[in-house]
Amino acid sequence: MSLSREQVNAINHERASSNRTLRSIAEGLEEHLYVAKPVLDHGFIRVIDYMGNDAAITQAARVSYGKGTKSVQSDEGLIRYLMRHSHSTPFEMCEIKLHVKLPVFVARQWIRHRTANVNEYSARYSILDREFYIPEPDQIHAQSNVNSQGRGGLLDGDEAARVLAILKADSTRCYDNYEAMISQDGQQGLARELARMNLPANVYTQWYWKVDLHNLFHFLKLRADEHAQYEIRVYAQGLCNIVAAWVPFAYKAFEDYQLDAVSLSAQMVEVLRRMLNGEKVDQDTSGLSRREWREFMSVFGES
Amino acid sequence: MSLSREQVNAINHERASSNRTLRSIAEGLEEHLYVAKPVLDHGFIRVIDYMGNDAAITQAARVSYGKGTKSVQSDEGLIRYLMRHSHSTPFEMCEIKLHVKLPVFVARQWIRHRTANVNEYSARYSILDREFYIPEPDQIHAQSNVNSQGRGGLLDGDEAARVLAILKADSTRCYDNYEAMISQDGQQGLARELARMNLPANVYTQWYWKVDLHNLFHFLKLRADEHAQYEIRVYAQGLCNIVAAWVPFAYKAFEDYQLDAVSLSAQMVEVLRRMLNGEKVDQDTSGLSRREWREFMSVFGES
Amino acid sequence: MSLSREQVNAINHERASSNRTLRSIAEGLEEHLYVAKPVLDHGFIRVIDYMGNDAAITQAARVSYGKGTKSVQSDEGLIRYLMRHSHSTPFEMCEIKLHVKLPVFVARQWIRHRTANVNEYSARYSILDREFYIPEPDQIHAQSNVNSQGRGGLLDGDEAARVLAILKADSTRCYDNYEAMISQDGQQGLARELARMNLPANVYTQWYWKVDLHNLFHFLKLRADEHAQYEIRVYAQGLCNIVAAWVPFAYKAFEDYQLDAVSLSAQMVEVLRRMLNGEKVDQDTSGLSRREWREFMSVFGES
Amino acid sequence: MSLSREQVNAINHERASSNRTLRSIAEGLEEHLYVAKPVLDHGFIRVIDYMGNDAAITQAARVSYGKGTKSVQSDEGLIRYLMRHSHSTPFEMCEIKLHVKLPVFVARQWIRHRTANVNEYSARYSILDREFYIPEPDQIHAQSNVNSQGRGGLLDGDEAARVLAILKADSTRCYDNYEAMISQDGQQGLARELARMNLPANVYTQWYWKVDLHNLFHFLKLRADEHAQYEIRVYAQGLCNIVAAWVPFAYKAFEDYQLDAVSLSAQMVEVLRRMLNGEKVDQDTSGLSRREWREFMSVFGES
Repeated sequence: MSLSREQVNAINHERASSNRTLRSIAEGLEEHLYVAKPVLDHGFIRVIDYMGNDAAITQAARVSYGKGTKSVQSDEGLIRYLMRHSHSTPFEMCEIKLHVKLPVFVARQWIRHRTANVNEYSARYSILDREFYIPEPDQIHAQSNVNSQGRGGLLDGDEAARVLAILKADSTRCYDNYEAMISQDGQQGLARELARMNLPANVYTQWYWKVDLHNLFHFLKLRADEHAQYEIRVYAQGLCNIVAAWVPFAYKAFEDYQLDAVSLSAQMVEVLRRMLNGEKVDQDTSGLSRREWREFMSVFGES
Repeated sequence: MSLSREQVNAINHERASSNRTLRSIAEGLEEHLYVAKPVLDHGFIRVIDYMGNDAAITQAARVSYGKGTKSVQSDEGLIRYLMRHSHSTPFEMCEIKLHVKLPVFVARQWIRHRTANVNEYSARYSILDREFYIPEPDQIHAQSNVNSQGRGGLLDGDEAARVLAILKADSTRCYDNYEAMISQDGQQGLARELARMNLPANVYTQWYWKVDLHNLFHFLKLRADEHAQYEIRVYAQGLCNIVAAWVPFAYKAFEDYQLDAVSLSAQMVEVLRRMLNGEKVDQDTSGLSRREWREFMSVFGES
Repeated sequence: MSLSREQVNAINHERASSNRTLRSIAEGLEEHLYVAKPVLDHGFIRVIDYMGNDAAITQAARVSYGKGTKSVQSDEGLIRYLMRHSHSTPFEMCEIKLHVKLPVFVARQWIRHRTANVNEYSARYSILDREFYIPEPDQIHAQSNVNSQGRGGLLDGDEAARVLAILKADSTRCYDNYEAMISQDGQQGLARELARMNLPANVYTQWYWKVDLHNLFHFLKLRADEHAQYEIRVYAQGLCNIVAAWVPFAYKAFEDYQLDAVSLSAQMVEVLRRMLNGEKVDQDTSGLSRREWREFMSVFGES
Repeated sequence: MSLSREQVNAINHERASSNRTLRSIAEGLEEHLYVAKPVLDHGFIRVIDYMGNDAAITQAARVSYGKGTKSVQSDEGLIRYLMRHSHSTPFEMCEIKLHVKLPVFVARQWIRHRTANVNEYSARYSILDREFYIPEPDQIHAQSNVNSQGRGGLLDGDEAARVLAILKADSTRCYDNYEAMISQDGQQGLARELARMNLPANVYTQWYWKVDLHNLFHFLKLRADEHAQYEIRVYAQGLCNIVAAWVPFAYKAFEDYQLDAVSLSAQMVEVLRRMLNGEKVDQDTSGLSRREWREFMSVFGES
């Protein structure tokens, strides 16, 4: 990630001046404000603004006149209770606004989360930067044989090198031609809204993205999951750190009851009951499909 | 509106302590924070928290690294441009959280605005207050003869007095019986989730309500309108004052291009063109239905 | 539930005439169309329209040019896979439209599910029917001592009788006065939008409600749950039967992986692993709170 | 647009078999079902399913027991009234499901409309077709000098030819390299989720898109507008024809009160009043900004 001097100055300027407010603050998040946290080779996440903190969750759950905190302990207990029992509306009372720089193919997955507010950099209006995502060598994987929408093992060195060479060359050429088409030097210059169609999906875009905490948790549950594509997962993991600093009780509850939780089908519960009674169960006698049995064993199989 | 001493203390306590933050603030809204603004006889609106200000709108529209303000003048111009051309997403970048006390029949209209976050006081869990909306005498109207979902003229004194007497007596009796049913004095006491069904729709409830500025404007356009029922309109008008203090440029643009704007059908535009050319047009020659012609005349008829 | 002769005729008329369509149909749901299924004392659910069936889910998941079905077996397998792995968007491709009659206090819980379309009978425009929910004697419970938002044991006979007498008397009186206020017999007649505020929360309202299958499942997971209030749970259970007739594969998958599934926290998974290894675990050594341990034991405790 | 023989067969198969249903049908739309309507060089729109028709709008507005139609005339009048007064919920009671093939840069604009259901062809799972949008020569415009996010005049022949040559060459090369990277011929083959990043934004994708009529109208108002980019506008225009066949009354009301309507600011209304009174008004005396005056004159200026 490289920011221009102008951008660095703008960020530093923001961090230099503080204001007095009667609003609640989240101390742990103040120190992250505005700072660009690098993700991938040219991407970043910046926290622009936030509303609420752990206490705001219990305040709303109690429809309080004041802060709504009783004691730190009872607040944490209430937050864990709300999370465990899918009482989602109090978590919607916290809101965060981010500035994110990310490759277009990641943005296309991200935008599928509809309950959020977005302002994207307009390539109709402005010229995109010459920045493309080129994977690190340890992220150049073959198509998976098991999971048809995932990655298998690493490509061997020669093949990986060929891939890298292609990605770099095509990105460069496409951007050179993008610039050539919009240039007004000795020609009229193609409209930007047309020229952008020549740019590949690894070009970086950026947007302001604003979301409430409940919907952010939903995003993180799906995108910090090991089945998510690596390139969006690293953004989700960066966000996990930010959320942990912002609302530590809520984040811990999310980890315990959502992110690291396991959902058992009615059939799996029955299998577990039999196993706890000392019965020896295998796939044949479990009533589970092979795929379900494999998923079940990955959690409860002997190590 | 009457708050308990405990509630007043909680509010004063909130207003007494300020914090330092690196976030942007909206000076005009800070002084409104937490204060209960009376609406109707027992209702109120309290601003609990907010995110953003006028500059946050242009910052998002420009996907800026810093504040995104260029000059106050160009900011206002951009905000007006965005409002005029239905570029709604930058307005979604501001958010406000309110604590509202309101009669149930108003809450039932309000909740129809779905793009918002709500935590309502639970009458399954808690006991509702003995507070009912009783209209002022100057708000006791007959059914309209013109508009089948509106009010006509004021009821005359005797009839109005009968109405008031009924509303007061029924509210009181229903609440007395509500208390009698849940009482655990010499009996088991009915479950609250059942007892509440005896309370009429003018009982007050309360909730935390959080919404972004774009969707708040949509709410205000419909509910501050003269066709809205008086009892929700006074809440909308109270909110208009709050929004004007929070984001003055955006609010002015909303007034000019939405709240006080007029939408002309294709046919009405044609009629106006003919009138500007000096032609005398009446309903017969206008091609408008009688109802449309009446609406048209209410804006452009001779005074 | 009692429908007027006119309403019965309208329903019969709808069922009498069929149309030819090129669209897919759901045979199991056709026979339910338009029929009013009774719920509570005066309520009902009627299916008005639907879009899609089990095959529409796989068709969308595969972005097919034709029906998208491969074989019935592979379709069911794919539907179960999608449900198990939270791939929710294909389930959004089915839609259902209902006409529901329900008490206002149930409607107030129901409307909290925001991702749906609603047209409610307008009490500003029309006069509500004289119909109130009066619980059956076996549904008149005391406040729970354990769960502060639930019901405990049945009230004893005398207390239950007092409750019933109150509910009936107050409903009747409030409605009598509602009628008296809006009457234009010898007086002007109060506006309906005002008079309705005198009606208690057990009065019946009705609406058209339209929702996609994914969001309907979410509704059913929360409202067919034993923690939901009885009066909304019976509607949810009625809906479960309708959905089972409409999309049998999807409904079975929903039952197995959602409705009857159990979510285990990270800590609970660890406890289960220890128990499967033969360790004796109790609350003290489990690391779970007392409340969590009770919830855990209710699933995996010895019978 | 070219469909494979297999795709044509699948579509013909769908159209060959009809079903009996008790549901309402929209005769005008039945004949469009499944047929691929060409848009741009390789795109199309296909109607896959629908729910409701004009009568369904009034049925929901009236919360009817039967069809809810009174007379064709009163239905049309009610629909026009609902549209004119922003009563949007009855229009949400109609739903349509489409299969659309479109360039990625168009899909990126389209997806910003969040209140819709989407299943997109997965380039993690499947291999994209070798199909790229290449503009017709009469759509190769220069950047606009007036509107910084739009097109100006046509590029002259030589420059347009250079642009076309670049777009074709880069698309072809990128796709060749995409195929080379995923090939498992003599190498492991790069994961599809990575290889896709080499494809430019004019590659075609496809999705199932389902939306209610109110939100579809909102989409059409923004995207059938002359300020929308040509490449999405042609899709919106194709949709306008489909909607006109589906719900002719609602579509006509949409045209008159939304698509072809004009919104006047409070200031513009005042200017019009002065002009109707015979006053000569120019920009200086109007109180409008130059930009607003230009917009005003484009509607009401002398021809």
